[in-house]
Amino acid sequence: MGQGFVIPLWADLSAVALGGLQGALFASGFRGQRRLDLLGVAIIGLVFGMGGGIIRDLLLGREPATLRSDWYLVTATASALLGMLIARPLHRVAGLIVGLDAVVIGLFGAFGTSKAILLGLPVVPAVFVGVCAAVGGGVLRDVLMGLPVAVMHVGSLYAVAAGAGSALLVVLHLLGVPVAAAGVAAVATTAVIRLLAVRFDLSLPEQRMLHRRRVAAETGLIPVVRGD
Amino acid sequence: MGQGFVIPLWADLSAVALGGLQGALFASGFRGQRRLDLLGVAIIGLVFGMGGGIIRDLLLGREPATLRSDWYLVTATASALLGMLIARPLHRVAGLIVGLDAVVIGLFGAFGTSKAILLGLPVVPAVFVGVCAAVGGGVLRDVLMGLPVAVMHVGSLYAVAAGAGSALLVVLHLLGVPVAAAGVAAVATTAVIRLLAVRFDLSLPEQRMLHRRRVAAETGLIPVVRGD
Amino acid sequence: MGQGFVIPLWADLSAVALGGLQGALFASGFRGQRRLDLLGVAIIGLVFGMGGGIIRDLLLGREPATLRSDWYLVTATASALLGMLIARPLHRVAGLIVGLDAVVIGLFGAFGTSKAILLGLPVVPAVFVGVCAAVGGGVLRDVLMGLPVAVMHVGSLYAVAAGAGSALLVVLHLLGVPVAAAGVAAVATTAVIRLLAVRFDLSLPEQRMLHRRRVAAETGLIPVVRGD
Repeated sequence: MGQGFVIPLWADLSAVALGGLQGALFASGFRGQRRLDLLGVAIIGLVFGMGGGIIRDLLLGREPATLRSDWYLVTATASALLGMLIARPLHRVAGLIVGLDAVVIGLFGAFGTSKAILLGLPVVPAVFVGVCAAVGGGVLRDVLMGLPVAVMHVGSLYAVAAGAGSALLVVLHLLGVPVAAAGVAAVATTAVIRLLAVRFDLSLPEQRMLHRRRVAAETGLIPVVRGD
Repeated sequence: MGQGFVIPLWADLSAVALGGLQGALFASGFRGQRRLDLLGVAIIGLVFGMGGGIIRDLLLGREPATLRSDWYLVTATASALLGMLIARPLHRVAGLIVGLDAVVIGLFGAFGTSKAILLGLPVVPAVFVGVCAAVGGGVLRDVLMGLPVAVMHVGSLYAVAAGAGSALLVVLHLLGVPVAAAGVAAVATTAVIRLLAVRFDLSLPEQRMLHRRRVAAETGLIPVVRGD
Repeated sequence: MGQGFVIPLWADLSAVALGGLQGALFASGFRGQRRLDLLGVAIIGLVFGMGGGIIRDLLLGREPATLRSDWYLVTATASALLGMLIARPLHRVAGLIVGLDAVVIGLFGAFGTSKAILLGLPVVPAVFVGVCAAVGGGVLRDVLMGLPVAVMHVGSLYAVAAGAGSALLVVLHLLGVPVAAAGVAAVATTAVIRLLAVRFDLSLPEQRMLHRRRVAAETGLIPVVRGD
């Protein structure tokens, strides 16, 4: 407990790996005013894979755990590189990026809330930290890429999904459910809400890209998106 | 002192409440390329109400005090919701948003500087922390909303006002004036400078919105602002 | 070592001074939709001079060292003011801004990596912290000024140069080379790579401005740059 609490390394690294993969896939699909070069794609993978955890630890007043071991950066970099390699074929499997995204925000949210609870934060801030951990990597990504911040404009869905998962985790914890089980339920809740939201809107995975293309055409405001 | 120093909870919560209210009022009046949904407005209220305090504590190397109690988030959320409810009638009382804004930056600046002094920071960094606490929430808000950062383009006024209040607080503190009295003087100074600046420019509260509309028309650069 | 480690004050202040100078020179040359006022230029000088060090210390979980002494802010402010005064004549000495920039990122990168090593971070995170310290001030500057984030779009060069310098420092440290000597080699490596990259691209210092002007003309996306 307290200082000694550590999320199991394999779980944390899995989240980082999926985040790095998703970030690189997302960035590979981006066509802006200037295409991102390969390093840019790798940076976005890193940011998306590690950003949530770093924001979580800053809010908790701890040294970022992801910088106390070589493994996080190695994992995030490797998965970002993998994402770049497989981006072209995988873009056809449209649902994959959305699905990965949903699972990643679920994982970051659950880890953020768990760590906050185990460090003794009250329940409301614990949920807040979970939401920030879940959406923080995406906010950093959008700011670095000069995109509208998704969580504000598209993605109330993100915040709602992350908030619901984090709140469920807190409730289950108060009811005495072990953190691991509560975490699994929280990840599932967040991911399912996010995926249902995408389905319910009848929006394709490229929804945001398409939307951007339309907005770009109408307003000239957003980096022009040429046909993917 | 030191670790044990806490700004009185009621004062801190009042600042957070006014910040949440102002943030929600500001965001409600925003018409961008996509109108913010209700959750977006609430998020901006939260960010504006709590951002300054979190930035202050990060710069001071402390755990964010606003996450050690349920009250801050509850207060900020409630006041943001209140702001959304009363946004429509209140937008006619034009001066209110500007006035609230002036008081809020005054409060955050004074609390930031006080906490820095009481934690033993030298006087120049104490003023710096106060200014960052005062304008930080607004910077986060603008970045999340994709607006030009007000403190850079419009709001030298903000930085000057916050700097003057924070510097006065430090001087009064060095002269032996109790923190509470010095804080009141600092808040008043910041708020008055900011309000005088708005008056002196003969600019209405909507100044920024109007300005934006003009810039948008001329350059297509800023989210098109349709008639409020 | 550990908590007691401090980069020599004169070296740290030199980096801050050069950063403040470069930031102010950069911002003075900026013509956006609204010209920055003098305070805006000073703020950018401060942000560029101090941003890297603050980000470094946040990632390391330490109180920002730059806020524990009056000297950093005084130095950064003074050098930013100096930069504003000499901006007009100096803009003719085109290479100077680019050269300063290269040295500044070298210094911030080397200090970031050194501090990380001496605080006991593993080698990969130590390089990461160095890169973040090197490019962090520039990212903050670009976000505040509403510019595309240079490190993503133009400046893979920045990240590569900073990464190479930081990695060299780590390798030399592992080989037993004293930190001071390793640091000098790292700064030189970063600066030379960055300068060679600029040369090799046959790009003038104004490259980014010119590029922006073209992009602005083509897309209306970036603040219109009128003749410098």
